[in-house]
Amino acid sequence: MSTEERKTSKSAENVVLIGQKPVMNYVTASLVQFNQGSAEVILKARGKAITRAVDTAEILRNRFLRDVKVKRIDIGSEALTIDNQTKNVSTVEIVLGK
Amino acid sequence: MSTEERKTSKSAENVVLIGQKPVMNYVTASLVQFNQGSAEVILKARGKAITRAVDTAEILRNRFLRDVKVKRIDIGSEALTIDNQTKNVSTVEIVLGK
Repeated sequence: MSTEERKTSKSAENVVLIGQKPVMNYVTASLVQFNQGSAEVILKARGKAITRAVDTAEILRNRFLRDVKVKRIDIGSEALTIDNQTKNVSTVEIVLGK
Repeated sequence: MSTEERKTSKSAENVVLIGQKPVMNYVTASLVQFNQGSAEVILKARGKAITRAVDTAEILRNRFLRDVKVKRIDIGSEALTIDNQTKNVSTVEIVLGK
């Protein structure tokens, strides 16, 4: 939630940005992060990808890494400008850790 | 997260189930709950409606009730059986409070 935490998480390499690809791509990316020694992996998504971020977290902790816990979930909004129209889009940040 | 908490929230009337309707329907439903004196409103969604639950929370606290905070967000999975096929679907529970 705090600005400081966000800054830390942005500069770290353990962030997985969730987009429109199949969910298993993001599960694999998170697995790689944990296997490379990260204690935390942060899933970030906005708009319709939010559901996929939750799916990623659930598949990871139920099927692959049972010792991984959801440490924190933050939601927020971002103003997105497309074709001179500003839309508010919701964002989510799921912090997973061992 | 605990079973006890879930039971309490289920038996309470301050639960808004997020489905496929326009997001403003759920914003209004939550507003009504708060205006009727609820200290907490719980948004529940699964599958693709998860994004809409996050949108509901964001619109409510950014546009209508600025004193409302996100108290807790839980994610989970449910096994859903359709046409003899069992699918895991992700769920979310967003607890809003003043």
